[in-house]
Amino acid sequence: MFGLMQDRPLLVSSLIEYADQIHGETEIVSRCADGMHRGTWRSTHKRARQLASALIALGVKPGDRVATLAWNSHRHLELYYAVSGIGAVLHTVNPRLFPEQLTYIINHAEDTLLFYDTAFAPLVEKLKPELPTVKHFVVLADEAATAAVQKSHPYVRSYEALLSGQRDDYVWPVLDENTAAALCYTSGTTGNPKGVLYSHRSTVLHALASCMKDVLGLSCQESVLLIVPMFHASGWGVPYSAAMAGAKVVFPGAALDGASVCELLNSESCTLSLGVPTVWLGLLAYLDKHPESKPKHLRRMLIGGSAAARALIARLESELSVDVIHLWGMTEMSPVGTASQRPRHWNTLSSDEKLDLKVKQGRVMWGVELKIVDDNGQALPHDGKAFGTVKVRGPWIAKSYFRSEGGSIVDDDGWFSTGDVATIDPSGYMQITDRAKDVIKSGGEWISSIDLENAALVHPAVQEAAVIGVAHPTWQERPLMLVICKPGQSVTRDELQSVLASKVAKWWLPDDILFVSELPHTATGKLNKLKLREQYQHHKLPT
Amino acid sequence: MFGLMQDRPLLVSSLIEYADQIHGETEIVSRCADGMHRGTWRSTHKRARQLASALIALGVKPGDRVATLAWNSHRHLELYYAVSGIGAVLHTVNPRLFPEQLTYIINHAEDTLLFYDTAFAPLVEKLKPELPTVKHFVVLADEAATAAVQKSHPYVRSYEALLSGQRDDYVWPVLDENTAAALCYTSGTTGNPKGVLYSHRSTVLHALASCMKDVLGLSCQESVLLIVPMFHASGWGVPYSAAMAGAKVVFPGAALDGASVCELLNSESCTLSLGVPTVWLGLLAYLDKHPESKPKHLRRMLIGGSAAARALIARLESELSVDVIHLWGMTEMSPVGTASQRPRHWNTLSSDEKLDLKVKQGRVMWGVELKIVDDNGQALPHDGKAFGTVKVRGPWIAKSYFRSEGGSIVDDDGWFSTGDVATIDPSGYMQITDRAKDVIKSGGEWISSIDLENAALVHPAVQEAAVIGVAHPTWQERPLMLVICKPGQSVTRDELQSVLASKVAKWWLPDDILFVSELPHTATGKLNKLKLREQYQHHKLPT
Repeated sequence: MFGLMQDRPLLVSSLIEYADQIHGETEIVSRCADGMHRGTWRSTHKRARQLASALIALGVKPGDRVATLAWNSHRHLELYYAVSGIGAVLHTVNPRLFPEQLTYIINHAEDTLLFYDTAFAPLVEKLKPELPTVKHFVVLADEAATAAVQKSHPYVRSYEALLSGQRDDYVWPVLDENTAAALCYTSGTTGNPKGVLYSHRSTVLHALASCMKDVLGLSCQESVLLIVPMFHASGWGVPYSAAMAGAKVVFPGAALDGASVCELLNSESCTLSLGVPTVWLGLLAYLDKHPESKPKHLRRMLIGGSAAARALIARLESELSVDVIHLWGMTEMSPVGTASQRPRHWNTLSSDEKLDLKVKQGRVMWGVELKIVDDNGQALPHDGKAFGTVKVRGPWIAKSYFRSEGGSIVDDDGWFSTGDVATIDPSGYMQITDRAKDVIKSGGEWISSIDLENAALVHPAVQEAAVIGVAHPTWQERPLMLVICKPGQSVTRDELQSVLASKVAKWWLPDDILFVSELPHTATGKLNKLKLREQYQHHKLPT
Repeated sequence: MFGLMQDRPLLVSSLIEYADQIHGETEIVSRCADGMHRGTWRSTHKRARQLASALIALGVKPGDRVATLAWNSHRHLELYYAVSGIGAVLHTVNPRLFPEQLTYIINHAEDTLLFYDTAFAPLVEKLKPELPTVKHFVVLADEAATAAVQKSHPYVRSYEALLSGQRDDYVWPVLDENTAAALCYTSGTTGNPKGVLYSHRSTVLHALASCMKDVLGLSCQESVLLIVPMFHASGWGVPYSAAMAGAKVVFPGAALDGASVCELLNSESCTLSLGVPTVWLGLLAYLDKHPESKPKHLRRMLIGGSAAARALIARLESELSVDVIHLWGMTEMSPVGTASQRPRHWNTLSSDEKLDLKVKQGRVMWGVELKIVDDNGQALPHDGKAFGTVKVRGPWIAKSYFRSEGGSIVDDDGWFSTGDVATIDPSGYMQITDRAKDVIKSGGEWISSIDLENAALVHPAVQEAAVIGVAHPTWQERPLMLVICKPGQSVTRDELQSVLASKVAKWWLPDDILFVSELPHTATGKLNKLKLREQYQHHKLPT
């Protein structure tokens, strides 16, 4: 027997319609190459409808992919709503990728239009001959700024000219809620980047669940500085969830340095900001020299993308008087999966115990099922000690990549393997201990490469440490540690081993430690352990 | 083109599974006829699975209706999850209805099982001969308490005996999310009660959206006293949303008097409570005599069911130091539609302006589309003055009643007419001014009967006032006011007209005022204007 409730689909367009109708006067502020732009949810909706009319006039059809290569701005927000709203697919491209990756991604997606910041005009010029599917190149600028670009790139169109004169009474179509809404490629360390194709349903459900008080906890009282790029897994969904909550949103454009971030936090009375650890390190460094610039309205900082160190969280909380909340997820998860919000027994904890929780990636939000499993797929206990591969399942988790690259990515019961390795404590707090491919498998037991690296960093002379597994005749794999010392400083193997021995189990100690002058990194700044493993695959461990 | 996200249905069972896994230790406290019961979300899940096994053993099949006639308790909560979880339909029956209505509803629903509080055993005994579809009668009690009931009602079974020995490893089936989950009858003033059939999808979406910070704003930090009955539109969805948020829930059982409510608020450190205005009037009356019992932890009170008077809101806020939030909705809306939460410009308002907003029913939540329309169905402006019939649309709004009673209840564009008449101000705050059928249509313009009644109540001698429209040769309808004076007090027609004239437009003034000794009321305590209109249909207005 079926219920007798209305068959209304969950659509991205409902978010901007809601924000317009109920929070129409709430500001959308954007720092662009052509200056500060002040609009509202109402003007965003109006311009998104003009853009929708323009896209249709340019021949964009339902299902077509429309690419963006852009920093966070009000125009990027309008693209979010216009492209998905008409039934086309918004493809947010990460401009930090290597040119070959950009070409691969845009061709793989068969993007028909490319919208980009004027700063990327030289980059696009270089890529253009390799992009046969792109019919129109549009810079996110007014006619004057576009004219300057057109001198060297005559084929570009102006975003503002495109909107100008378009009707703003476009009515969003009622689509099937499973219609594709957005596409985002995730670049692993192996193989080509793979596209995650979000649906209207997954996008709306993720936004709604992430609005919960113990996840992002957005409300109409909030002024949000969105530092995390909108090309990174939909800016953690905030362009959608902020509309649903009616929050003010501030877009920082390209300037993510401490001074610029600080200025916006103060001038726009931001109460909440979201970004990766690097940005916050930059902010702290700036405030060290400019203590008078301390953000006055900021109450909460949400950190994700990579793990925030305990010391960073402690400094942010004490120096900025904010509540730091760790988030975890990935592109395949829309992306938020966990948030390290306060548990019920928060007030009974010591400051150290509170920090212990904040360092963890947190508790899973409703809608995401999460488990840790061993090599045989058996679920492991939530005792804070057992660590296993994290598997997730839910209506905003990917089931396969665009064009079925890599085949099915879920197991028979529908679980997606995240590639992260974690523990879960009895209160449900997950802590990532490694990437599955980086974990060292020694005699049937697992050793966390990250735990070993963090233990090495305790020694004041160590600048960077990397641990990989190398083949071992008896134990299958054993850990090898590579260390860069700080300029002018040094440490001996024995000294370092004794520091490690005070932090980890004896059988975790690396079989060898090598001192090196550099370590390979990926385009996004992470240690390239794949390269390290190739480099050291024949390394002979001392016996 | 469709997205490539997992096809996971939205199911009620996911809520209790989540609460168990992440908030398993959080308490569920319940005051029952057989004493205080202290459990957790984990024990609730365990017992719900035992109950699921028991229901299946009793022959309950997917789609079967299982009725409850019960106050709020942990056992009622277990029924919420077990019945819907196995794919059957939870039918919550309002024990305050007249026996003929109860018989009609249970027979119309064809309930196969009836679970009820021991206090209702005599009532059920009376109804039993008229309930041919009910195969099992189960009292929500342990074996000892049931034995006492069995002396006079030998056919009753014990709920605890039913659970006892049942397996608690039942695995909730993966259902189609449009499967019916719950059934609730709404009794208008005309015709037979009509059943609203909620689906798993509508129930989960409503719970998720109502968790938003600017709606119920539930979190794992909260301790919620659920006073609104679980037979009233699913207890405003809190049995579901509290699981999603991991909040502690306290069930008050049958005792809703000021003393009992106060005791629970203090003993269970309740931070939030939800109920109808009558309950809060009772609480204030109790606190007048027992000021030392003032609730210490209460921060927010959510009021719905009927409009809270300005004076009530002001007293609650000042005397209890709480934030009072008005909710509006109806059974057909799952039920929450609006919440009078703080707007962005809250801090710029005077205390009087703040109260002006709190008296309104508030802003619509995301997911509900809401408009006010005139007699021709044309949308009216949001200027805080124009008032029209409220129409709503969305995934948790009914499209028809059970067994199609009354035919289709949505218009060609899918809008459901709520029967309420309201204004909407420029910030989106809706204020109910009347029921559509009670509004007086005078010369093409509308007069609010409720505004006139409230204006009359300003006179200190007026105890109750009712305004109805009576036929008028020129104006179609004109208002007639009926007044009951307080014992030993009086007021003249002219005196009252001059009070009214200071509050409403001149053309709104009643054409006649009659002083009466009593006014008819419905079973739920509301003025029965249908009866009044019949009674006064031939009343001659003075010319």
